[in-house]
Amino acid sequence: MKYAKPLPSYLVQRYQGWKATIFSENKAWYRRLADEGQRPRAFIISCCDSRVHVTSIFGADQGEFFIHRNIANLVPPFTDDSDHHGTSAAVEYAVSALKVAHIVVLGHSNCGGVQGCYDMCSGHAPELEEKSSFVGRWMDILRPGYERVLDVPEEQRKDALEKEAVLVSLENLMTFPFVREAVEKGDLTLHGLWTDIGEGDLHQYDPETKSFKLV
Amino acid sequence: MKYAKPLPSYLVQRYQGWKATIFSENKAWYRRLADEGQRPRAFIISCCDSRVHVTSIFGADQGEFFIHRNIANLVPPFTDDSDHHGTSAAVEYAVSALKVAHIVVLGHSNCGGVQGCYDMCSGHAPELEEKSSFVGRWMDILRPGYERVLDVPEEQRKDALEKEAVLVSLENLMTFPFVREAVEKGDLTLHGLWTDIGEGDLHQYDPETKSFKLV
Amino acid sequence: MKYAKPLPSYLVQRYQGWKATIFSENKAWYRRLADEGQRPRAFIISCCDSRVHVTSIFGADQGEFFIHRNIANLVPPFTDDSDHHGTSAAVEYAVSALKVAHIVVLGHSNCGGVQGCYDMCSGHAPELEEKSSFVGRWMDILRPGYERVLDVPEEQRKDALEKEAVLVSLENLMTFPFVREAVEKGDLTLHGLWTDIGEGDLHQYDPETKSFKLV
Amino acid sequence: MKYAKPLPSYLVQRYQGWKATIFSENKAWYRRLADEGQRPRAFIISCCDSRVHVTSIFGADQGEFFIHRNIANLVPPFTDDSDHHGTSAAVEYAVSALKVAHIVVLGHSNCGGVQGCYDMCSGHAPELEEKSSFVGRWMDILRPGYERVLDVPEEQRKDALEKEAVLVSLENLMTFPFVREAVEKGDLTLHGLWTDIGEGDLHQYDPETKSFKLV
Repeated sequence: MKYAKPLPSYLVQRYQGWKATIFSENKAWYRRLADEGQRPRAFIISCCDSRVHVTSIFGADQGEFFIHRNIANLVPPFTDDSDHHGTSAAVEYAVSALKVAHIVVLGHSNCGGVQGCYDMCSGHAPELEEKSSFVGRWMDILRPGYERVLDVPEEQRKDALEKEAVLVSLENLMTFPFVREAVEKGDLTLHGLWTDIGEGDLHQYDPETKSFKLV
Repeated sequence: MKYAKPLPSYLVQRYQGWKATIFSENKAWYRRLADEGQRPRAFIISCCDSRVHVTSIFGADQGEFFIHRNIANLVPPFTDDSDHHGTSAAVEYAVSALKVAHIVVLGHSNCGGVQGCYDMCSGHAPELEEKSSFVGRWMDILRPGYERVLDVPEEQRKDALEKEAVLVSLENLMTFPFVREAVEKGDLTLHGLWTDIGEGDLHQYDPETKSFKLV
Repeated sequence: MKYAKPLPSYLVQRYQGWKATIFSENKAWYRRLADEGQRPRAFIISCCDSRVHVTSIFGADQGEFFIHRNIANLVPPFTDDSDHHGTSAAVEYAVSALKVAHIVVLGHSNCGGVQGCYDMCSGHAPELEEKSSFVGRWMDILRPGYERVLDVPEEQRKDALEKEAVLVSLENLMTFPFVREAVEKGDLTLHGLWTDIGEGDLHQYDPETKSFKLV
Repeated sequence: MKYAKPLPSYLVQRYQGWKATIFSENKAWYRRLADEGQRPRAFIISCCDSRVHVTSIFGADQGEFFIHRNIANLVPPFTDDSDHHGTSAAVEYAVSALKVAHIVVLGHSNCGGVQGCYDMCSGHAPELEEKSSFVGRWMDILRPGYERVLDVPEEQRKDALEKEAVLVSLENLMTFPFVREAVEKGDLTLHGLWTDIGEGDLHQYDPETKSFKLV
């Protein structure tokens, strides 16, 4: 791997600062986490977006959340094709190996992935329709959500589609036999959230009213 | 989606604390990030493991790092099968849409995914060999790394395989035409890191000596 | 300009070292910053003093902070006399063109400019009272602060005046209509800091208690 | 000063990291600098631009450079109007109080202030012509430089004007009697530099050829 380069020095400086303070203050706990293994309470599925830090929003320290982050916080439906499925592997590990008590899908405003899906489905992004587009093929997962937002006034569709990304993912989670079983036995609960980056608001899905409500 | 449940109250409480403090202190900046879009400097590929918080280690605030997290921080090789590839979609978005300057693959000690791969490859985890195992099929990506650690004394192989997870991912990144092109033009640099959770140490890959060195 | 001389060779040597290391490690990002323009999060007003490096204290890399440095980190009050106002121009550019989210005024211990102001106001530096003294006329900005430290025991007045330099600057910032408007709309927040050079301490102004508190 | 807000927590974290590492390692020296006062070798006049870190380029530690930063690294001509002149005060303090051996004016590529001056002088930025524009009135200092770049091919004028900003400042420095006297006595040397942000190049003014040469 001849292409690897040294870390930029501003990151080295910051790392050394972290080691001398936060790590040093928590050393005993981090050593126990290393020796005894993790035991996270929740599994979070969040977006790669640099503006969404679930650990910050929930004041989570190392050891609390098992976190998968992908474009648009999507879970594909269950398949048995033996292919590489990074998201499905994370779900399986969280539920079957770590036995987390909660799965939280966290969507967010201003999502570039969802914008791409919206543009693609409404015919304005032919490049995302191409077979070779990894983003396009990934966002195909959200196509069923696009159908459902067509009833919504046009200026609200983009936001509605971000919330559909959460719901489609929750629905797809239930297609995994080990998820369904754990949910039905009461060993696991699912939660759907959407956060507004600019306002700092957090909304959660309420199955009673079938809508997202401010927390 | 009738299965969604209300968020546990301890998380609601912490969210409200975050909103009143950290969000409030950074409101103006978060609004600008929402309005103008993200412009992250680096793309981080890290593990889902709850004990590895790259934003903490590097003192990064919202907006700085675009982050993909999956089991064992793996990147699969480039394919053109039009399937759902979450990791490849994240790489494409980071490099082609966001034009990040750095990709950092961050491995870590005590990695459960790598342990699984080790057990599977050494014949001690037949359940991971099964077609239906998402974790097993995902860890197949690391099989070429397993071959390379067989020369290492047995008690060091597990650690060596964690570092191979970083190197295999860097090698696979270079199979993506748009990654290779950006690297060759000098628009993108790759970095391989491995952190020891219990010691708080950070090691980086040095192509000169073909080994990981303490930062 | 016949007076310009070649750079001392120790600086040439260091520059060449920087180019081969730090620049080289960050080249892709620096090129993007050049092509796309800066988007700094904060505007820092700091002293020219060689002992105060705000980028080091906050681990900031190129692109993060827009920085104005003058004697004693002072902001003059708003005027509309069409004269050359370097500080006011920097404030206007930071707020109106760059739309920074934070303005930080950073004062410091052992400040020679503030010492001069103290000596001048207490009658011990007649040379600074002269019309021709640029330092004296610049330090006139801090005269309202001198009035306010007369209640303080004499041996603490010099330190108190350094903190007044921060407060007077924050007050003067609020006399700029575009600053006031951005603050009132929540698009901009102001912060007052004072650092003890010898102790490495950082204090911030707390409006509740009207005093500087250790961070 | 009721408007001051607490420092964003990511900056608090980074500060604490700095204190525990860089400060801690250099404590003895920083204490001496505090007790004995600064004795900087050079006075640097640089731009506020977030992409230009003169301390990084020259590997300067605390105590080495007395630094004034303003929009477009400009020095106004000497005047005796008793007004607030931040730049002139910094020049006076550096030369008369600190007796620096060098003054370095450091210009740079992609300068927003110089771009504004160029647009204003070529009739494309009427808003900068207004009396109330602090940036416009500050950039008036560079008008004599604009006249001199009209001979240059149009596509090179913007770069040429950035270099004129360095030369105009050096010329204006020589209008300060105490600067001229120190230069003529050989106690002070002046240096004109221009750096290309994207390429990391450094050019210095050579009075022999009346041009900037790569260092």
